[in-house]
Amino acid sequence: MARKRMTEDEIIAMFPRISNWGRWGAEDQRGALNLITATQRAAAARLVQAGEPVSLSRPVATEPAADNPRPTTHLMIRSGRLGHPLGIQGSADYFATAPHGFSETHLDALCHYFWDDKMYNGFLSAEVNFQGAHRCGVEVAREGIIGRGVLLDIPKLRGVDWLEPGDAIFPDDLQAAEHEHRVKVGEGDILLVRTGRVRRRHRHGGWSVFTEGLAGLDVSCMPWIFERRIALLGSDGVSDVMPSGYGHGLNLPVHTSTLVWMGVYLLDNADFEALAEQCARVGRYEFMFILAPLVLEHGTASLVNPIAMF
Amino acid sequence: MARKRMTEDEIIAMFPRISNWGRWGAEDQRGALNLITATQRAAAARLVQAGEPVSLSRPVATEPAADNPRPTTHLMIRSGRLGHPLGIQGSADYFATAPHGFSETHLDALCHYFWDDKMYNGFLSAEVNFQGAHRCGVEVAREGIIGRGVLLDIPKLRGVDWLEPGDAIFPDDLQAAEHEHRVKVGEGDILLVRTGRVRRRHRHGGWSVFTEGLAGLDVSCMPWIFERRIALLGSDGVSDVMPSGYGHGLNLPVHTSTLVWMGVYLLDNADFEALAEQCARVGRYEFMFILAPLVLEHGTASLVNPIAMF
Amino acid sequence: MARKRMTEDEIIAMFPRISNWGRWGAEDQRGALNLITATQRAAAARLVQAGEPVSLSRPVATEPAADNPRPTTHLMIRSGRLGHPLGIQGSADYFATAPHGFSETHLDALCHYFWDDKMYNGFLSAEVNFQGAHRCGVEVAREGIIGRGVLLDIPKLRGVDWLEPGDAIFPDDLQAAEHEHRVKVGEGDILLVRTGRVRRRHRHGGWSVFTEGLAGLDVSCMPWIFERRIALLGSDGVSDVMPSGYGHGLNLPVHTSTLVWMGVYLLDNADFEALAEQCARVGRYEFMFILAPLVLEHGTASLVNPIAMF
Amino acid sequence: MARKRMTEDEIIAMFPRISNWGRWGAEDQRGALNLITATQRAAAARLVQAGEPVSLSRPVATEPAADNPRPTTHLMIRSGRLGHPLGIQGSADYFATAPHGFSETHLDALCHYFWDDKMYNGFLSAEVNFQGAHRCGVEVAREGIIGRGVLLDIPKLRGVDWLEPGDAIFPDDLQAAEHEHRVKVGEGDILLVRTGRVRRRHRHGGWSVFTEGLAGLDVSCMPWIFERRIALLGSDGVSDVMPSGYGHGLNLPVHTSTLVWMGVYLLDNADFEALAEQCARVGRYEFMFILAPLVLEHGTASLVNPIAMF
Repeated sequence: MARKRMTEDEIIAMFPRISNWGRWGAEDQRGALNLITATQRAAAARLVQAGEPVSLSRPVATEPAADNPRPTTHLMIRSGRLGHPLGIQGSADYFATAPHGFSETHLDALCHYFWDDKMYNGFLSAEVNFQGAHRCGVEVAREGIIGRGVLLDIPKLRGVDWLEPGDAIFPDDLQAAEHEHRVKVGEGDILLVRTGRVRRRHRHGGWSVFTEGLAGLDVSCMPWIFERRIALLGSDGVSDVMPSGYGHGLNLPVHTSTLVWMGVYLLDNADFEALAEQCARVGRYEFMFILAPLVLEHGTASLVNPIAMF
Repeated sequence: MARKRMTEDEIIAMFPRISNWGRWGAEDQRGALNLITATQRAAAARLVQAGEPVSLSRPVATEPAADNPRPTTHLMIRSGRLGHPLGIQGSADYFATAPHGFSETHLDALCHYFWDDKMYNGFLSAEVNFQGAHRCGVEVAREGIIGRGVLLDIPKLRGVDWLEPGDAIFPDDLQAAEHEHRVKVGEGDILLVRTGRVRRRHRHGGWSVFTEGLAGLDVSCMPWIFERRIALLGSDGVSDVMPSGYGHGLNLPVHTSTLVWMGVYLLDNADFEALAEQCARVGRYEFMFILAPLVLEHGTASLVNPIAMF
Repeated sequence: MARKRMTEDEIIAMFPRISNWGRWGAEDQRGALNLITATQRAAAARLVQAGEPVSLSRPVATEPAADNPRPTTHLMIRSGRLGHPLGIQGSADYFATAPHGFSETHLDALCHYFWDDKMYNGFLSAEVNFQGAHRCGVEVAREGIIGRGVLLDIPKLRGVDWLEPGDAIFPDDLQAAEHEHRVKVGEGDILLVRTGRVRRRHRHGGWSVFTEGLAGLDVSCMPWIFERRIALLGSDGVSDVMPSGYGHGLNLPVHTSTLVWMGVYLLDNADFEALAEQCARVGRYEFMFILAPLVLEHGTASLVNPIAMF
Repeated sequence: MARKRMTEDEIIAMFPRISNWGRWGAEDQRGALNLITATQRAAAARLVQAGEPVSLSRPVATEPAADNPRPTTHLMIRSGRLGHPLGIQGSADYFATAPHGFSETHLDALCHYFWDDKMYNGFLSAEVNFQGAHRCGVEVAREGIIGRGVLLDIPKLRGVDWLEPGDAIFPDDLQAAEHEHRVKVGEGDILLVRTGRVRRRHRHGGWSVFTEGLAGLDVSCMPWIFERRIALLGSDGVSDVMPSGYGHGLNLPVHTSTLVWMGVYLLDNADFEALAEQCARVGRYEFMFILAPLVLEHGTASLVNPIAMF
């Protein structure tokens, strides 16, 4: 923890060195999804042995909480004998949600973050307007994000139940976790980093991430992430440590580094508790990872229920 | 088409014969999902060879249309330099949806239909109230519906681009399609039946299913479906042919038969066009099927993006 | 404050004595609105002398707060050159709201409360279902609630800036306020009782009414209210003191007494600060009162912006 | 009807001549509301004689219709014994609405229209962004729009039940209606122009205003409107005749003329049927007019229930 932190200038100087802009052509909107080949997807399917699925989704959160000030609205439209246009008995419902935030398990589309009025691949932020994201919307991932998932369980590595809010994860943590889990993160992988947040939340209830913080990656992990050429970075927090200590639009520098510069998608607010138990039980930290976002054209995110298959 | 139709009395007499109530215990809420074993999921993963995913989801429909009178609301919350609580540049959005209907690709939870004030396994419809479905909600499927998918392409069988609205599919169509596709539907399978609706819609635009109808299964298919012991029935329509010719709450008797009596889940309004092309191209009508509904506790449905993996 | 509180049994015994059920016929849904005659409305208009309107509405609350855990959603649909179906420049928006609660200024329809499965005039609570309120919905008041308004300013009476959360108002407070304001509440009047809550909120911010309470009327005021034959009871809180000290569905006994038994409408969460200043300045606590609820058929409430005209 | 139509160039040349920009100062956002004086409001109240209110609001429209493709969502939150946080019996609801359109009775805020990237008084359209309208939002009218209302009943003048879709109203119609109704529109008045649309709709159902049109004012009425110095223009349509015959952002030139140039508010989709009957019955086309928009800060519109008092 006494490590030297990067300065804001150093972060900004790092951006071009971790950039994938132009790598897959000037019109590319898929970003690091290009790194997952069909061969890798087929290999990922071969990781399925027992046929056991593990959901990585927290329940859609319909109650206000300290970490969820604007919950999803879930209302019933009808139930019973009345109300169906055909006179049929049954039930139907409605929900309204703003997926970004610190509670719902969701996929960030690449259009979710800008830097200096640009998004991934240099597209102008003006491509996102009142009618939605005309570049890098979530529908770019309509065929799903399917590949090899790798879990790095940092609380297990440190011998704790969870990281405390504000605790930062550094590159040597990632390195050490790889070593301890006997796995190596590589090109096209889906990297999931556990902080134990959901376990802490079950024990102590939700807390305001703005005032109390959230465990996550220090921005100094970004070159490591870039070099490993992952396709998606997932977290039970939001990948960024909070507070990051940075301002001036660099408040969540992992978001900026991944979404804007690398074109790496983010999975936020996942639940890795069952996954961590499963990995520990079977002694294997790799698995088939499946995430199929809703095809919301011009959308900036999707609620998702990612599945790890063993 | 000149086949003799079942009477309403015959349908009602059929219900107990296609019932799975009690089969997995009095408290079971999973229904036919119980038929998918871990072994079958592992076998399904072995169907993945090329590593090619095919999305089976239509885009979330945000425009009013003849077959979509209450579209999803999709609005932007912010974009650009303003509005983020941390002063960060980026974009965020909001959407509100009622998943049931004749446009959005969605999974029906078992609580979506009742018969005689009961739902699957005899649970009282009163278990669904203003606070949601306290039995058989969509979260029952939180671990996903993953298994062997089988497509039966009826327009291909009949040598047409699509079935016309109101065209019914009969058990011998299913049988003939199995024969022509060299596949056999079996226990725990996910059965997808193509009517070509999406192709027709691309050509001619949407139409009101209430006034013009929708191609789908005649209720006489239900014993066949029951005997094959499938876990999920999917359609590019809503599985039922419309109009069914029946009333008195039997208007969509395939819905009643599957959701209420068999505990078989329904996937409605899927897009099987790319899937049909892929199956024809590779000469294989079976594949790994993956559907991961949102974990909306007490919900009656989920928008979904199902994936077929080849 | 050391007054003897009514017991729950006493409250229940009081209900039939303050009942207006049947008074205006078995089918009546208007309740105490029947008490406002055309003559009274015309007389109310004659109270307008200076032509000065005072809004009694707090702003629609779009931010989460301790007393507003589920705020109104307000989103922009478009602005500028893009997005209008006719290509016109302009802006448009969207809002979603659940009017009941402890923040939005709203009118409670009579269907908002039940007692023993009945609402006002003995209508069965089953008349309210998933499709809305088929009796006593807010559209009953579509012609507006217009009449003589009377303000009783209790903090002024007590010489304080505001009543503290949990402070109760008793019949002799109402009586004393009438005397001090030189006004007498009478048949068909709209009675507004100020607690100073908005002033306290401006000073100290919002607080949870569930944990900290809210100033309001003790249930022992109900016979006084009944005898005065008012049409509407308005508050800058929710009329009831909270906590009331009662349970078993009697938690907000002023709500039950007025909405269910008397058929008296409630105006909740109004802002009486400017009104109190105006009344004090002109030395007059009566005025023309105007409230025009949205015509939301089968609705249980309406956001409103009531106006006092001087 | 064979009158010579203004050209688009002539309309644009007219704009500065009907402009109120700067008239009430460079920071003014109230526009023509400045024309209603306290004296006039007091005089309006004296028009109340019988004490009879007439609602000018259509019901909030919750069903899709040809003229209402995106209806308001109205859902119940709870009813009966379950669901209240305090265990109380009662009901509550939720609604979501986009007020602009061709069905809901609503007030347009001045920010609703722009011309050449400016709104009323020269404010930049950029003052309206994702966070709402930071100038000329609907909360500017929070004290209500209260004054003398005048109805001009054009179908009555022409001896028809209603104007047909597309029928235009010209200045001499307004003049003739004044003469026939023995009323004169003057400074600070609220001018309501009936086309009979609601009556036609009751008879024939809704129709698409885009394909079939809507009766309303020809743009040549604008100098007359300007000279009369009204505060608000209300219609049972949307004031503009549709189609106007104009394009290039001039499609609804009455909207542009009033909202942008004159700062005159618009009331759209009102119901003047009961009002017209009342005016005819009492032989008086002036009345106290009351409209109290919801205090939705930064909003572009409000659903409203305007009241005419006789």
